[in-house]
Amino acid sequence: MSVIDLLIKKRFGGELTHEEIREFVRGVTDGSVADYQASAMLMAICINGMTAEETLNLTMEMAVSGDTLDLSAIRGVKADKHSTGGVGDTTSLVLVPLVAACGVKVAKMSGRGLGFTGGTLDKLESVPGLSVSMDTERFIETVNKHGLAIIGQTKSLAPADKVLYALRDVTGTVDCLPLVVSSILSKKIAAGADVIVLDVKTGSGAIMPTYEKSLELARTMVDIGNRTGRKFAALVTDMNQPLGNYVGNALEVYEAIEILSGRAEGDLKTVSLMLGAHILRLAGVVSTVDEGVRMLEEKIRSGEGLKKLSELFACEGGDPRVPYEPDRLPKAPKQIDLFSDADGYVAGIHTDKIGYAAKALGAGRERKEDKIDLSVGIVMKKRLGDRVKKGEPLLTMHVSEISDVPRAEALAREAFRFTDTKPETPELIRGVVE
Amino acid sequence: MSVIDLLIKKRFGGELTHEEIREFVRGVTDGSVADYQASAMLMAICINGMTAEETLNLTMEMAVSGDTLDLSAIRGVKADKHSTGGVGDTTSLVLVPLVAACGVKVAKMSGRGLGFTGGTLDKLESVPGLSVSMDTERFIETVNKHGLAIIGQTKSLAPADKVLYALRDVTGTVDCLPLVVSSILSKKIAAGADVIVLDVKTGSGAIMPTYEKSLELARTMVDIGNRTGRKFAALVTDMNQPLGNYVGNALEVYEAIEILSGRAEGDLKTVSLMLGAHILRLAGVVSTVDEGVRMLEEKIRSGEGLKKLSELFACEGGDPRVPYEPDRLPKAPKQIDLFSDADGYVAGIHTDKIGYAAKALGAGRERKEDKIDLSVGIVMKKRLGDRVKKGEPLLTMHVSEISDVPRAEALAREAFRFTDTKPETPELIRGVVE
Repeated sequence: MSVIDLLIKKRFGGELTHEEIREFVRGVTDGSVADYQASAMLMAICINGMTAEETLNLTMEMAVSGDTLDLSAIRGVKADKHSTGGVGDTTSLVLVPLVAACGVKVAKMSGRGLGFTGGTLDKLESVPGLSVSMDTERFIETVNKHGLAIIGQTKSLAPADKVLYALRDVTGTVDCLPLVVSSILSKKIAAGADVIVLDVKTGSGAIMPTYEKSLELARTMVDIGNRTGRKFAALVTDMNQPLGNYVGNALEVYEAIEILSGRAEGDLKTVSLMLGAHILRLAGVVSTVDEGVRMLEEKIRSGEGLKKLSELFACEGGDPRVPYEPDRLPKAPKQIDLFSDADGYVAGIHTDKIGYAAKALGAGRERKEDKIDLSVGIVMKKRLGDRVKKGEPLLTMHVSEISDVPRAEALAREAFRFTDTKPETPELIRGVVE
Repeated sequence: MSVIDLLIKKRFGGELTHEEIREFVRGVTDGSVADYQASAMLMAICINGMTAEETLNLTMEMAVSGDTLDLSAIRGVKADKHSTGGVGDTTSLVLVPLVAACGVKVAKMSGRGLGFTGGTLDKLESVPGLSVSMDTERFIETVNKHGLAIIGQTKSLAPADKVLYALRDVTGTVDCLPLVVSSILSKKIAAGADVIVLDVKTGSGAIMPTYEKSLELARTMVDIGNRTGRKFAALVTDMNQPLGNYVGNALEVYEAIEILSGRAEGDLKTVSLMLGAHILRLAGVVSTVDEGVRMLEEKIRSGEGLKKLSELFACEGGDPRVPYEPDRLPKAPKQIDLFSDADGYVAGIHTDKIGYAAKALGAGRERKEDKIDLSVGIVMKKRLGDRVKKGEPLLTMHVSEISDVPRAEALAREAFRFTDTKPETPELIRGVVE
């Protein structure tokens, strides 16, 4: 059976067998399926869809297309978490230490971001001395000893996904359900955790812009995920404004520390605790999500969460004093406020534009080679529904010599929409899929 | 507007504007649209289709993607003909001289075949001395003087089609109506004729296997073709067995000579005359097809057709005596009969397999670089519905040292299916689209 036969089958709406999907994924991985054939298949899948069975098989074959992590040497339940990606979204740095403090092992594989800000790895590396370069052996050892560790995605993790992901980006096939699902899940399956909680964003800064599509994505991922034999849950959370108030790398680490120190409340904390509570529930540590939230709150009060963060930093060579003395984080040389030119209520924040503004300041990459400045970013001063007076600061830009300030300022200004009357504000947790 | 936007539009079933199609074709031609983007578009077109307006615009933009032939220096109506390709299908060599003998100029651009046997150019070059290498200027001069000429497709004719054609072949998107139509018509439009007759094959050796699909292709081509301002007609003709009895290069020239000499009858002659008669009707030389057929028959009887063939050969440097002394054509060193191992009636001939058998003997190419032997091929001894006795020859293989005889023999034997009772034989001219 040649790839051309598979293309013809999917073109006419046929269901690919497991064997056929295996051949396709193998060919994509070893290059015997050419880019132009893979992209034709992606388009056919986008238009004609895939059954749950096909999506499951695609996920599993992509998961085993390269190295898979064997975490069996780690005692107990291993948890992981994935977010479809947003702005000011550093739930990992809040929930990983808290969940570990509750006794659930967190063996997290993270990426360097391409986009608005860096990924979790970049954020971590804003901690002085810290460099994420652990190998698998030390990773497992660290999780066993400290209950948590974060490593970078190995190059050979789900290589089929790398090829298909790059092609989706340039062929208009990004937001296609079976492709999004298999791309996300394959990497999580390959990374080896038993319990995986997904945070599916919805709104102006999300991969799926409508709530219905986001919910469908969450449901499909949990359905397909559970069929792989792991335990999955998903939240659908609002991304109509940055989740936290801090957008950047060191800035987001700072906000995580503030939350773990019990000094900050807000949406970032709420979502982090909710995701963490689902991990505790799936891991069997608590029997309800409410119970999980209470347990995590207690780990903030007791300082055990902050201590775990310090351990996490130390294990990666970072300064363990940072969680207790956050002033040790790098600081941008200059801060510039953006003042409101109108009176009213904040009725809309175009999250994407805040993200692009942070990127213009140097917080994120366009291409892998691009340099980022871990100190720069944006601190939001107003959230949806807030009353604003003309001349009040909407946000503060943390800038350095690599920042394109005029561009960032223009984008940030465009992001805000005001009304005269108090608007409805979106619900934060839009849906839960268990 | 980026190509990704166009891909997304077509993915969701949108209708591309003329401007969008122009940008796509330009990008395909200059390489700014990558292969993997072009193939994703081809798949989206296959699944979601194109309106007549889109197909027309795609055809016209592909036609002008490279050089176009300006035949305005040729006096009178210029005719061309195209066949979707079959086995033993050398209607061009029969109808071009006959139509020219009736006073309609034939300025034909032909290809070197990739497939079962050579294209018209290869067939012509089996005439001793003949080499198709005329430039456009001499081509126009020759058509003006002799009323006919055949040249090879210039490299820069419809380059967008070359890219898309190659991609269709390897992405399972060959038999897609708007793509087939635009591919065929764009080259015919670029080649400059006023009157174009199409021979759409149907059956086991045809691009469209079912009659309904073939008729739809013929109708769409005539519809789109007429919208371009040229005059089109199409026949749908049977390809459930080789059209002529001779399959090869010199062998097919030989059969054309036999027909033009009035010594041979049969399906090849019938289809050639019918196609020629439609050209005469569209050119306004006759008012009915029947009248056209009678006029062409008369050109056989008078020897004027054969004389035009001799002129055609001479203009290209070939031996003008060949039409009168066909023994001058190259002959394969050896002939091997394939004998029937059954009694009965010929109920089915898998045309493709006869084609592949001829190719195995060396009559056709797999790749452009492959060598072919102009003398080799197959002469069919039995046609559909014929009574066959065990031990009677089904066909004769003309073989040379480059022939893979065991493979050819196996393919040829597999091609035949027999029954005990006389089967229905297919109609030759299945449909006419005027």
